Amino acid sequence: PESPLGPPPPSEDRRLRLNISGMIFQTWESTLNRYPNTLLGDPARRATFYCPDGDEYFFDRHRPSFEGIFRFYQRAHKATADRPNKMERPLSVPVDIFYAEMKFFDMDEDVIKQCLEDEWYSLEEDPYADLPTREPHRSIWLLFDYPESSFAAKVIAVISVSVIFLSIAVFCVGTIPGFDTDPLDSNANGTVLEKLDRAYQDQLFCVETFCIIWFCFELVIRFYASPNKCSFMKDIMNIFDIVAIAPFFVDFFMIVGGFELQHGSSTSVFVRVLRLFRIFRILKLSRHVKGLQVGGRALIESTGAFILLIFFICVAMTLFGSILFFAEPNSPNWDSIPGTFWYIIVTMTTVGYGDVYPTSIGGKLIGGVTVICGIFTLSLPSPAIVTNFNKYWEMSKNVIPTLDKEEPSGGV
Amino acid sequence: PESPLGPPPPSEDRRLRLNISGMIFQTWESTLNRYPNTLLGDPARRATFYCPDGDEYFFDRHRPSFEGIFRFYQRAHKATADRPNKMERPLSVPVDIFYAEMKFFDMDEDVIKQCLEDEWYSLEEDPYADLPTREPHRSIWLLFDYPESSFAAKVIAVISVSVIFLSIAVFCVGTIPGFDTDPLDSNANGTVLEKLDRAYQDQLFCVETFCIIWFCFELVIRFYASPNKCSFMKDIMNIFDIVAIAPFFVDFFMIVGGFELQHGSSTSVFVRVLRLFRIFRILKLSRHVKGLQVGGRALIESTGAFILLIFFICVAMTLFGSILFFAEPNSPNWDSIPGTFWYIIVTMTTVGYGDVYPTSIGGKLIGGVTVICGIFTLSLPSPAIVTNFNKYWEMSKNVIPTLDKEEPSGGV
Amino acid sequence: PESPLGPPPPSEDRRLRLNISGMIFQTWESTLNRYPNTLLGDPARRATFYCPDGDEYFFDRHRPSFEGIFRFYQRAHKATADRPNKMERPLSVPVDIFYAEMKFFDMDEDVIKQCLEDEWYSLEEDPYADLPTREPHRSIWLLFDYPESSFAAKVIAVISVSVIFLSIAVFCVGTIPGFDTDPLDSNANGTVLEKLDRAYQDQLFCVETFCIIWFCFELVIRFYASPNKCSFMKDIMNIFDIVAIAPFFVDFFMIVGGFELQHGSSTSVFVRVLRLFRIFRILKLSRHVKGLQVGGRALIESTGAFILLIFFICVAMTLFGSILFFAEPNSPNWDSIPGTFWYIIVTMTTVGYGDVYPTSIGGKLIGGVTVICGIFTLSLPSPAIVTNFNKYWEMSKNVIPTLDKEEPSGGV
Amino acid sequence: PESPLGPPPPSEDRRLRLNISGMIFQTWESTLNRYPNTLLGDPARRATFYCPDGDEYFFDRHRPSFEGIFRFYQRAHKATADRPNKMERPLSVPVDIFYAEMKFFDMDEDVIKQCLEDEWYSLEEDPYADLPTREPHRSIWLLFDYPESSFAAKVIAVISVSVIFLSIAVFCVGTIPGFDTDPLDSNANGTVLEKLDRAYQDQLFCVETFCIIWFCFELVIRFYASPNKCSFMKDIMNIFDIVAIAPFFVDFFMIVGGFELQHGSSTSVFVRVLRLFRIFRILKLSRHVKGLQVGGRALIESTGAFILLIFFICVAMTLFGSILFFAEPNSPNWDSIPGTFWYIIVTMTTVGYGDVYPTSIGGKLIGGVTVICGIFTLSLPSPAIVTNFNKYWEMSKNVIPTLDKEEPSGGV
Ligand SMILES: [K+]
Ligand SMILES: [K+]
Repeated sequence: PESPLGPPPPSEDRRLRLNISGMIFQTWESTLNRYPNTLLGDPARRATFYCPDGDEYFFDRHRPSFEGIFRFYQRAHKATADRPNKMERPLSVPVDIFYAEMKFFDMDEDVIKQCLEDEWYSLEEDPYADLPTREPHRSIWLLFDYPESSFAAKVIAVISVSVIFLSIAVFCVGTIPGFDTDPLDSNANGTVLEKLDRAYQDQLFCVETFCIIWFCFELVIRFYASPNKCSFMKDIMNIFDIVAIAPFFVDFFMIVGGFELQHGSSTSVFVRVLRLFRIFRILKLSRHVKGLQVGGRALIESTGAFILLIFFICVAMTLFGSILFFAEPNSPNWDSIPGTFWYIIVTMTTVGYGDVYPTSIGGKLIGGVTVICGIFTLSLPSPAIVTNFNKYWEMSKNVIPTLDKEEPSGGV
Repeated sequence: PESPLGPPPPSEDRRLRLNISGMIFQTWESTLNRYPNTLLGDPARRATFYCPDGDEYFFDRHRPSFEGIFRFYQRAHKATADRPNKMERPLSVPVDIFYAEMKFFDMDEDVIKQCLEDEWYSLEEDPYADLPTREPHRSIWLLFDYPESSFAAKVIAVISVSVIFLSIAVFCVGTIPGFDTDPLDSNANGTVLEKLDRAYQDQLFCVETFCIIWFCFELVIRFYASPNKCSFMKDIMNIFDIVAIAPFFVDFFMIVGGFELQHGSSTSVFVRVLRLFRIFRILKLSRHVKGLQVGGRALIESTGAFILLIFFICVAMTLFGSILFFAEPNSPNWDSIPGTFWYIIVTMTTVGYGDVYPTSIGGKLIGGVTVICGIFTLSLPSPAIVTNFNKYWEMSKNVIPTLDKEEPSGGV
Repeated sequence: PESPLGPPPPSEDRRLRLNISGMIFQTWESTLNRYPNTLLGDPARRATFYCPDGDEYFFDRHRPSFEGIFRFYQRAHKATADRPNKMERPLSVPVDIFYAEMKFFDMDEDVIKQCLEDEWYSLEEDPYADLPTREPHRSIWLLFDYPESSFAAKVIAVISVSVIFLSIAVFCVGTIPGFDTDPLDSNANGTVLEKLDRAYQDQLFCVETFCIIWFCFELVIRFYASPNKCSFMKDIMNIFDIVAIAPFFVDFFMIVGGFELQHGSSTSVFVRVLRLFRIFRILKLSRHVKGLQVGGRALIESTGAFILLIFFICVAMTLFGSILFFAEPNSPNWDSIPGTFWYIIVTMTTVGYGDVYPTSIGGKLIGGVTVICGIFTLSLPSPAIVTNFNKYWEMSKNVIPTLDKEEPSGGV
Repeated sequence: PESPLGPPPPSEDRRLRLNISGMIFQTWESTLNRYPNTLLGDPARRATFYCPDGDEYFFDRHRPSFEGIFRFYQRAHKATADRPNKMERPLSVPVDIFYAEMKFFDMDEDVIKQCLEDEWYSLEEDPYADLPTREPHRSIWLLFDYPESSFAAKVIAVISVSVIFLSIAVFCVGTIPGFDTDPLDSNANGTVLEKLDRAYQDQLFCVETFCIIWFCFELVIRFYASPNKCSFMKDIMNIFDIVAIAPFFVDFFMIVGGFELQHGSSTSVFVRVLRLFRIFRILKLSRHVKGLQVGGRALIESTGAFILLIFFICVAMTLFGSILFFAEPNSPNWDSIPGTFWYIIVTMTTVGYGDVYPTSIGGKLIGGVTVICGIFTLSLPSPAIVTNFNKYWEMSKNVIPTLDKEEPSGGV
């Protein structure tokens, strides 16, 4: 008696009645059968919930969640390889409850995962999944990469962070006049030992050497213990490690080789630039500080917004710069259009050092317009960047514990 | 048995029962018949879905969406020419799903389009709809206006953008002392060829000429190939093109004509101002950069907010300026109320160059109040402008693919 | 058969069934009868909608709206004089639709008005409600207070705004050296006419006199035509008008009386301060610019947030000022704790003129902390103020046209 | 006839039907019985609402609220000690209505409290709950700690705040040259009375002594009257009181003891630092100003965001500082990497005093990048801090009056 009399639905298709805690859903049997691996799609499994009284399937489950799950079946025929069918959480249902309902109705794992990702949620994962299997690799890897795994591991992590801070401090202090003796200066003569002896009279160089020894030790032992050598070499964190060490060895071999730097020579410039790479050590911190990783990922995700911002700034710079130059051509502060760019930048960002500023009435008018445009130009991409940061920050916190597959039972 | 006994409804009006996947809607037949061209409004078409069992029309469709569609029928009698009936999407339904339901129930195309626009969505349009029909116009138009149509077109686009950058660079560099030889200076004597020869000894003028040749070539060939000459001339982008070229030809014909500029003469000022128009070339970039177009449209849409902001700033400037002048009348930094305006602008926007600042206690107090008022005055229109930018940015991305009209079928 | 068997509900109370387009609501008859003046509360009126088939009352009305209207009846017994029952719009229903439903079910006018105000909406009001009844008062009042009523009224408004701008310009220009001749200087001798003759050789004083004549004319004629003299005198706008005129007459009578100002005398100071009141004319603009009124009302509404902000700034100023003074006691920039306050203000607001700044390491550290605290202190009340502005701005735009009382009819 | 035929639900479990004003909910009896102390969980109490007609329980209550309450029963079996079951308010229901429904269905007090806290609401509490029971303690405590309890108490509060302001003013004024005579200077000789006589010739010291006497009086009498001496000593407010008084007594006893400060001695430094503690008096204000308490709590709650921000700033400082130093090594403004830190701070916060700024093209480029990075770095934690402030501010205002337990009755 359930089949309609109208022509289109195939005559063997029956209308089913689902009772979700008193809320009635009706649909064609074929709609449910689109996903035969789910609880509702499999005639045998859903039969467990059949109540002859009312000729319906009764589920004592969360009603608002079921609107979302029901829609998933209805939308199935629209799905293409290009636009696969997506499970969408009704706005008013909390994510963890919807997750439990998806598990109960036995949705596909991929569908569940995609749905959670869209909500900035992630499923709890076993952090110890990728450990090396053999000993002592396994113990060493735990010691160096899982600070929370043991007290010793925590001590190692603290030492590691301290050495990073120490080496950055040495880098900064080494530029202060009085401390800035270059171990390469007047170090050309004598045997290797004499050269090293002279170099190590500089206490900063000693501390630097100590830091490098620790970094090398850490890198080598982690490489030895790593479960996969190939992915270890590709990890951006380990590349930072190597880049941060390199400048020291160039210095070291130049001392050993007896090079002497001439000021202004191209070698001198090369060494200076290479030494600047020591600042990459600060990025080693991101291994230990979650906030830096989140910030970095947000920065990468916001590249588009940043490029647009920089493009906007460049356009505004050229536009306002040339108008300003024509409004105040004889200013002592600039002598050409490119000369006004620094003023425009300093003004648009509202820094206003005061080293350059317009003096004529026309220039001041252009200056005022520039500030106001600058404030709004800089506020345009701000929401995008803040949103990206929040997204990754939330995702790193929004972890819901994995549920085991429930055995379907009518009483739940 | 479906007709009510109460007096008001006309006796021939029946109460219909719609079953949307188990959710029951009831209404008078006349309510549905208000839109006879839709699936529900046409008795013959809705009969396909009639189920005698339950005396109802059964649709296996999305339930939450139907609340919105049902409301459209109910509100019809309120619609006037002034305030037409609008389809409103229920908050919890995603736009693409609501679009599919509107198509299924065969709503009017205008109604659907209006509904999508209100949601900052647009329907996918065929970008190649307005192409010229004849050859070679069609191929040329594709080559110059559709960079994604072929590899050659992409190359043309890259060249075009490069030449724009080049010409802007020439414009900026041309003001740097040493490069700023004016081709009009001391160029009055000699034959035309001699004059041109002297002018073209300036390398920047050569590059400038090359850029102009490209711009002219591009403009002329695009005009030749354009499908509609009239709308081509009215397009703001093409007007920018013409304005950006004009200054060169004035210079060129003055060289040929042997004009010599006297400093301070009105001709000299006119030529200077005209040359400033070369900066319009930066607006030619908007043809190639979507972000600039979006920014421009958002700027135009936010005109109201900007005028209010400027008005607020002017009021605050006069108000605080006069109070400040009376609080510190003998300051070395200003000698009158208009003289304080620059200080007030620089302070309200928190730029604070430091060229002018109050020195008395009273002046500092007024200065402090000015900053705080300025910060809040500038934050008032900020949300409006950011929202406008986001709206157009979203609309340029939120494109849903057009669905074909579905043949109504009971089984969906 | 509708009455329940359980003990508490009084035996004469019946359970009613309301069918809102297929959505079923059930409640006790006494619940509806709590508001006997409404459509549902009056047994006779609701009987029109009774359908014996199903023993229910059928309404072909908007379903989601009815959740809100139904709640109003249910919550009635909680209402006290202190906390009256409030109609609350369901989140997903647009305001104009909910308004139509409230009118249909014939809710009390006060309830409807309160509900709309909570949503930042207002009902359209007849702007011409308070006009004077007699002529020529009525015509004059329309001419001066309703710019949109006729072309002549628009001209009057433009003149009025222009004269305001003119008088402000005169006020500002009058302080520029060369224009700042005081009509009171060396004007003690001679007859009244001679004194006035000397005063009116100053062209600015002539223009000022013209502006004052217009202001007086406008004020007097509007007072003459005003429908209610008493409320006219209490209107803040008219008080601004009087205050803006007053300084001129003091000047004028001092010229006539032959006063001569001695620099530094208390009379001189009094006259100077009084002249500053001329800047109040800028507030006269708010009669003509809606944005200024909205801004003013938002400012008044945000007083609490501003007081808290100023209190925060004072606390931070004292706190950071004293720490900074102890960190850098021998700075050339300050000699005491109050001397650092200007630095703290300039730093917290990120203006940073550069006239004062710390030079020691300790001072720079405190300075850095001060900036960061300042940025966050100033961002705290920002949302409140922006929200207030938006609220009044929206309310001045969100006007829904008044609906007439619908005659209840079953067919809608 | 209610029991299903499918195997899983235990055969004695019945399906119950709840009718909430016409909305039907169905569930297993065992589901409701999970909370036997609630109205629905207790078979005897729910029987009052049983209607044999329809075999259902009829409640004339708020329908949308019941979705939340019903879910609480359904989710009970998921609750563990680690993740207790939580009542969650449906988005569309106002908090006070949901509170009334929770009370009606007699939920556990803890569940209600937790639910309200999650919504930033708190229940009205009796402010006079913790009063001392004996007299005169009770009257004194009311007088000093409950300004709103009587007119005398209000006067005391005003005096208290005034004395705080007075003592801060004395502290600030005492550093102005001319007022900054140190009572310890040249005060070594003579009897105690002579020393005190000399000290009290300084008027500021007299006012300071008066303030201290009031503070001591207030502290002692409040300690005497406090209901619990132990928690009184632990209250952070009272600790502020003691710390704010201490410096005076050190000064006082040094005068009495005849100490003479030598400039630069360690005692001198100690006394100076101790005197700085007098600024803690400003924190005494937080007892009287709700905004300060809210601000303080928000600050404490936002510690995480602040630490991340400071860490970001430090990383950016080192990174940009070293790049800048290598780009412009011979600047007159800095001589080392740490020397650039002040510039970086001043630039990232957009203060820009102008005492240091880059002069080379490379330096200006780095400077521009630094500003833009700074603006975004500082905007990242801003939402978190503003949200925290709003949360506590709302919670201090969102107080709903406690409802008494309603006697369940069928008619509501
Ligand atoms: K500055
Ligand atoms: K600044």
